Amino acid sequence: MEGVTYQPIGVVRSPFTTLEGMPLQTVAAQGVRGSVEIEPIYAAGLKDLAAFSHLILLTHLHQMSGYSLEVTPYLDDQPHGIFATRSPRRPNPIGLSVVRLIAVQDSSVIIEDVDLLDGTPVLDLKPYVPAFDARDTERIGWFAGRIERVHTTRSDKRFTEG
Amino acid sequence: MEGVTYQPIGVVRSPFTTLEGMPLQTVAAQGVRGSVEIEPIYAAGLKDLAAFSHLILLTHLHQMSGYSLEVTPYLDDQPHGIFATRSPRRPNPIGLSVVRLIAVQDSSVIIEDVDLLDGTPVLDLKPYVPAFDARDTERIGWFAGRIERVHTTRSDKRFTEG
Repeated sequence: MEGVTYQPIGVVRSPFTTLEGMPLQTVAAQGVRGSVEIEPIYAAGLKDLAAFSHLILLTHLHQMSGYSLEVTPYLDDQPHGIFATRSPRRPNPIGLSVVRLIAVQDSSVIIEDVDLLDGTPVLDLKPYVPAFDARDTERIGWFAGRIERVHTTRSDKRFTEG
Repeated sequence: MEGVTYQPIGVVRSPFTTLEGMPLQTVAAQGVRGSVEIEPIYAAGLKDLAAFSHLILLTHLHQMSGYSLEVTPYLDDQPHGIFATRSPRRPNPIGLSVVRLIAVQDSSVIIEDVDLLDGTPVLDLKPYVPAFDARDTERIGWFAGRIERVHTTRSDKRFTEG
């Protein structure tokens, strides 16, 4: 299949300048404030966005190089197929973050619950709509019984070395 | 900023061969069965995926050409900024679909609730984990009072013409 090329629409500003110590998911980053700085040519696309309480950010996890088909995630001590994990070491390192929207100021979108590195390119920004995006699950695989660890676990060097 | 290039990891197989008449969201496509055919070189990444009831598909909405910064979505009669809608006419046409996982058979992932065209390239596949992906919202902007229409509204030609 042909490759697909995207032009980032903006960039994340966050307090995290290195992967070490960064929260692993937005749920573990509650109250961490940052912003998405949208390229001015796209700013008109933000109209009416301020009326939503939550956004979905799709980002390019630019610090990743290479991928692994099996990884041992932070929350477990067993390897799993990469598509059964949320590890960034994926063939296409696209990050999905559900964040809280605080305000829209010109081309700047102020957000909270930021689990992303400062400088992360943003590919898309969508309104979070529970009817579309929230589901009751019957099974969450190996995450069962391990989710609570996400609040105390932070990133180390495993995804940037080797 | 530099462009970002991804190589699709697979392709969607679905009953929908034209945009006309297609459901607009997975929530309006309940029971519609399809599959993701993963490229064999990535099949090892599917290990342990079958233990999840729901998946997130990130896809390249390949039928889109060009974008609009304001669109009048199917569910409303007023224009909104593209980033305040789920319209595919976005600068980077990346689709996000939460689908039900039925089974994993070799490199084929059988799914239900498919709101995607047959042949849609798949960029990433993630396990759906409510702790990461589900949020209680206070505000859903212009969608308020209009969500129910998604069940009876189908795609027409507006996103492919002009």
